[in-house]
Amino acid sequence: MKARERGIQIGRINPGRKNCITDVKGVKVGHVTLDYPLDSISQDYACTGVTAILPHEGNLFQKKVTAAGFVINGFGKTTGLIQVNELGLLESPIMLTNTFGVPAVTQGTLQYMLENNPDIGEATGTINIVAGECNDSYLNSIRLFPVKPEHAIEAILKASSETAIEGAVGAGKGMVCFGFKGGIGSSSRIITDGYTIGCLVLSNFGKKEEFQWFRYSLDKQNSGGLSGTSDGSIILVIATDAPLSDRQLLRVAKRTGAGLGRTGSHFSHGSGDIAIAFSTAHKVLHYSNSSTEARNQIREDHPVMNEIFAAAAEAVEEAVLNSLSQAVTTSGRNGRIVSAFPF
Amino acid sequence: MKARERGIQIGRINPGRKNCITDVKGVKVGHVTLDYPLDSISQDYACTGVTAILPHEGNLFQKKVTAAGFVINGFGKTTGLIQVNELGLLESPIMLTNTFGVPAVTQGTLQYMLENNPDIGEATGTINIVAGECNDSYLNSIRLFPVKPEHAIEAILKASSETAIEGAVGAGKGMVCFGFKGGIGSSSRIITDGYTIGCLVLSNFGKKEEFQWFRYSLDKQNSGGLSGTSDGSIILVIATDAPLSDRQLLRVAKRTGAGLGRTGSHFSHGSGDIAIAFSTAHKVLHYSNSSTEARNQIREDHPVMNEIFAAAAEAVEEAVLNSLSQAVTTSGRNGRIVSAFPF
Amino acid sequence: MKARERGIQIGRINPGRKNCITDVKGVKVGHVTLDYPLDSISQDYACTGVTAILPHEGNLFQKKVTAAGFVINGFGKTTGLIQVNELGLLESPIMLTNTFGVPAVTQGTLQYMLENNPDIGEATGTINIVAGECNDSYLNSIRLFPVKPEHAIEAILKASSETAIEGAVGAGKGMVCFGFKGGIGSSSRIITDGYTIGCLVLSNFGKKEEFQWFRYSLDKQNSGGLSGTSDGSIILVIATDAPLSDRQLLRVAKRTGAGLGRTGSHFSHGSGDIAIAFSTAHKVLHYSNSSTEARNQIREDHPVMNEIFAAAAEAVEEAVLNSLSQAVTTSGRNGRIVSAFPF
Amino acid sequence: MKARERGIQIGRINPGRKNCITDVKGVKVGHVTLDYPLDSISQDYACTGVTAILPHEGNLFQKKVTAAGFVINGFGKTTGLIQVNELGLLESPIMLTNTFGVPAVTQGTLQYMLENNPDIGEATGTINIVAGECNDSYLNSIRLFPVKPEHAIEAILKASSETAIEGAVGAGKGMVCFGFKGGIGSSSRIITDGYTIGCLVLSNFGKKEEFQWFRYSLDKQNSGGLSGTSDGSIILVIATDAPLSDRQLLRVAKRTGAGLGRTGSHFSHGSGDIAIAFSTAHKVLHYSNSSTEARNQIREDHPVMNEIFAAAAEAVEEAVLNSLSQAVTTSGRNGRIVSAFPF
Repeated sequence: MKARERGIQIGRINPGRKNCITDVKGVKVGHVTLDYPLDSISQDYACTGVTAILPHEGNLFQKKVTAAGFVINGFGKTTGLIQVNELGLLESPIMLTNTFGVPAVTQGTLQYMLENNPDIGEATGTINIVAGECNDSYLNSIRLFPVKPEHAIEAILKASSETAIEGAVGAGKGMVCFGFKGGIGSSSRIITDGYTIGCLVLSNFGKKEEFQWFRYSLDKQNSGGLSGTSDGSIILVIATDAPLSDRQLLRVAKRTGAGLGRTGSHFSHGSGDIAIAFSTAHKVLHYSNSSTEARNQIREDHPVMNEIFAAAAEAVEEAVLNSLSQAVTTSGRNGRIVSAFPF
Repeated sequence: MKARERGIQIGRINPGRKNCITDVKGVKVGHVTLDYPLDSISQDYACTGVTAILPHEGNLFQKKVTAAGFVINGFGKTTGLIQVNELGLLESPIMLTNTFGVPAVTQGTLQYMLENNPDIGEATGTINIVAGECNDSYLNSIRLFPVKPEHAIEAILKASSETAIEGAVGAGKGMVCFGFKGGIGSSSRIITDGYTIGCLVLSNFGKKEEFQWFRYSLDKQNSGGLSGTSDGSIILVIATDAPLSDRQLLRVAKRTGAGLGRTGSHFSHGSGDIAIAFSTAHKVLHYSNSSTEARNQIREDHPVMNEIFAAAAEAVEEAVLNSLSQAVTTSGRNGRIVSAFPF
Repeated sequence: MKARERGIQIGRINPGRKNCITDVKGVKVGHVTLDYPLDSISQDYACTGVTAILPHEGNLFQKKVTAAGFVINGFGKTTGLIQVNELGLLESPIMLTNTFGVPAVTQGTLQYMLENNPDIGEATGTINIVAGECNDSYLNSIRLFPVKPEHAIEAILKASSETAIEGAVGAGKGMVCFGFKGGIGSSSRIITDGYTIGCLVLSNFGKKEEFQWFRYSLDKQNSGGLSGTSDGSIILVIATDAPLSDRQLLRVAKRTGAGLGRTGSHFSHGSGDIAIAFSTAHKVLHYSNSSTEARNQIREDHPVMNEIFAAAAEAVEEAVLNSLSQAVTTSGRNGRIVSAFPF
Repeated sequence: MKARERGIQIGRINPGRKNCITDVKGVKVGHVTLDYPLDSISQDYACTGVTAILPHEGNLFQKKVTAAGFVINGFGKTTGLIQVNELGLLESPIMLTNTFGVPAVTQGTLQYMLENNPDIGEATGTINIVAGECNDSYLNSIRLFPVKPEHAIEAILKASSETAIEGAVGAGKGMVCFGFKGGIGSSSRIITDGYTIGCLVLSNFGKKEEFQWFRYSLDKQNSGGLSGTSDGSIILVIATDAPLSDRQLLRVAKRTGAGLGRTGSHFSHGSGDIAIAFSTAHKVLHYSNSSTEARNQIREDHPVMNEIFAAAAEAVEEAVLNSLSQAVTTSGRNGRIVSAFPF
């Protein structure tokens, strides 16, 4: 159940039909969840997975989208942001997984993209893969590398524009948020001009006592939950169909911090709090003969810009709540259990 | 009255004795407030001022403090941050005023510093002045430049380590926050190891409907207040006696965004949301014969680092609330009045 | 005489007709030079000035140009870059002066812009002034503030699209470069598609022994010149009529470092090495009813982008050489003399 | 043969005994070179490799070094810099390879580090691997992923403090620089206080006509060489035993651009020009009970800082020349040959 179905209303702007990042036309989400013992004697366990976010339904390398990444706190191993920020473009799916799964997921995504683009590394240059991560080592035997390259390919192939499954699924399978089970959460906002702002988070941050439960008329936060969890991380993905330049998307990515702060986060030292925002409004062709191109963008002093910013902050807050609200109690390695939040 | 005296408790960490940035030993605050008609016929009015924050009681140029600035949103005219961030040092007071008062305040502060340091520009190099601003043009006749260089000097000379006066005073005289009267607010936190984190804000941001009054058990926010205010700005100053490096202070400065987001801000497009953090733990001498120096700093994986981050976020939120709680209803140009928040 | 007239050829791309930043259509440059004793008894002397660069001939606030600033080394007091980089826009002239002249020049420019825009601070928001500086205190009595606000206004009013005067003029009057007389230098490049890249520098950097005279078939660099000069600074302005986005202009601004490095600079510790790049191809209107706007921009994988980068690096190198080549031997305070470079 | 042995002298500061990054005590370099046909029918060929740079001889995770990364131009896939810059620490070897080898090399390095640190992902958190890359697809069948995780481990195990082998070796095996064979180059400088600055580059950038051969009294650059090469990249690693803070190392990393510009680079659009600087002077322990630690650092206004900057720029220029000077003519895929530079 989404938090909103539990009566928790966040912000002043209305969500889209699915209240999900897939409300942004063309955006697709796919999960591969790993959930099995790795060994019969030890208590090693695969409690992890991969989540793929596809900006649109076409060839992502041939038709790039405008994008920007922002590092709120950089205790993290996200890869690909250097080129995203240099060129203002995203040319791969955004992949999410556990910290030590990044090389395998990057490898798998690379293989998938090469297979679909025989020109890369041959007639044209290289490709930049974006992969974000959180550390799920409380529940998952992260040292044993359960995530393989083929899981990345599978997550991409399974991606759909339906309402994304949330909670303990895909990359969110083993994640912990505010001492309770977190993981994948999503939400959306529709603003005045009809633009949609969607958000998907991989939540794995926050100590139990930091959660600002009183904001949400909750009173049961003290029943259960883990104490003394480590700092964790959160990956925050914003998608929109509003025509925004890379600089404007960077500004949007920075607003995720406002929404994150409202939940209680202070951007912990050991947290990789990393935001990526992209716009589907304009596709930049990889091949073109012209030396210039026109791009439409929002006029920033128009009120719609502040609506987009407010929507991004609200969507982040609601996506975090959804990651808690949708997650089920989950067992992992060493017999450990993380409880669902007692709404 | 501070917000805390009204029963509004923010966060989990205890404030210092004065609940003010001056709880950090040595830090001094001085205000000059301008409040008079500029003309008998027109309705032009000086409703503005200058606020000076001195990092310590000694010669600020000869004994610099470690510092860092962070631009949350850069629709602002703050000056001096380029050098602060290159060298990690602050060598002047932090001056606050209205947007068009920055040249006069920089000039006055420069004159004050030159007078007290006859070597600058002669035997040694130059000096870097830091001045932050918000736009008080709703109440103040900002085009008429009521702030003069001597007001900056006067604010520096009046600086004291007493509890800072808050609200519609100094640079805060003409500021508007969430549709009500804002301005200067301050607060502090004492963390486990005895370190103090102090905050002073100049609040001039937020639309009335963005204020998250429900967080503070307030219900009267709809009575009065201005509608449709423009985006405004906020300058956020963090002081601490914890030994932090410039990089660590940059991390602290970024945490102001978490606290600011909690009040309801989404870092508006037209807002100059700018944070400066400094540590008084170590004074860097302008003159020295040695080629190296030792600096003490917090070990970042020690829990104290997260306490500092949490304290910074809490202190910002409380300082904003204090700026509202302490401000009185104020009249300015064109017969305009901005009401105190109806607590 | 320009360096090229002395037989010094830099790079592979042809200069424009004037070999000057004013080859970019619409760009204007104006200087006010101060050159007089400040006192009959002391040897204080005004050996300084102001230089104004106007991006186009219209109202700079109403019609903004795309822009970006880059700090190569931040030991400097340039003001205005925070907002330029947040919004990607320049809405004032770029003003150059001595370090302590920045407040006066900002004040004068502000007054000029307010006079020409009665809506600023009244019906609309504020305005962001960009002012760069170098420290001319070897020749100029910088502590006595010879530059006044009216000098900034005068420099703006005198701006013309003729070939800019170079050397010991305007803000360059008192500057020292590689131990010899530096100051204002300018140059330009015309690339394949007919786009122009212009550069204007205020050169005040480098020790005598750092100059890479052997690059330019010079052999007389050891005759004369000052030894042991302090670190100085350089402001680097790039103008172009190529349609570039703010991110692309940031990339261009970064290329100034390549050209600067070629002259021998290692971006000294005490140097404010600051670049600003703007494009005149598109004017962004301050007032508009539409919520979006189209902007044309270079396709970055088209070869023209590398031509622009190469042109920017070459133009910087040649502008620095021109600042040396055009500067005359100059006397200043305390009877000090800085010799022209002995070409 | 090093460039210096060919009579090419760069800069004013003396090199160390080995004129190599391994002049910095404790630094080790290891290469694995792949050089074989991948198929008997097609002309696919493995012409690539891995290079490992170890900051010191101890456990790199347990004893971290201070570090900073700087992106000169970000068309690249280097991984690990986000955390290096957040914490100012390097806790892994710096690994170099081809663009599509990054996932395999990261995976192999991760496995090596986990094997040597059973606490990672178990009793303590995660580890951040730094891997840089250039695109060697002209000579190497990059799409076929010849680099495997075990090659990374082998390169680490083979690392030695001897003079590093340069040219077409390790990650440099398939690289092209200014149309001739490039690859690994190294150099060093000893400055007044006895500090050493070492540099190692992986050179793969520049068109033939961009090389500033006239700087080096060369006249044969037109004989041979490839025309119309694509943009390439360069990874620039600076090591020093001078005690520098992370911010100071960032400043040093930025100076690599000055040296790179001198060779003729304008930081091409398609180039990943990425610098990483680290200091071995201080080891930061992963485990410690104390909440603070003292770190020694250079006083920046001492002349030694400028010496370090100048040395970094010189060392980069010389390392690029060495990469050309040491590289031999090399054959790769599709029967392609890249000639050694005709010194």
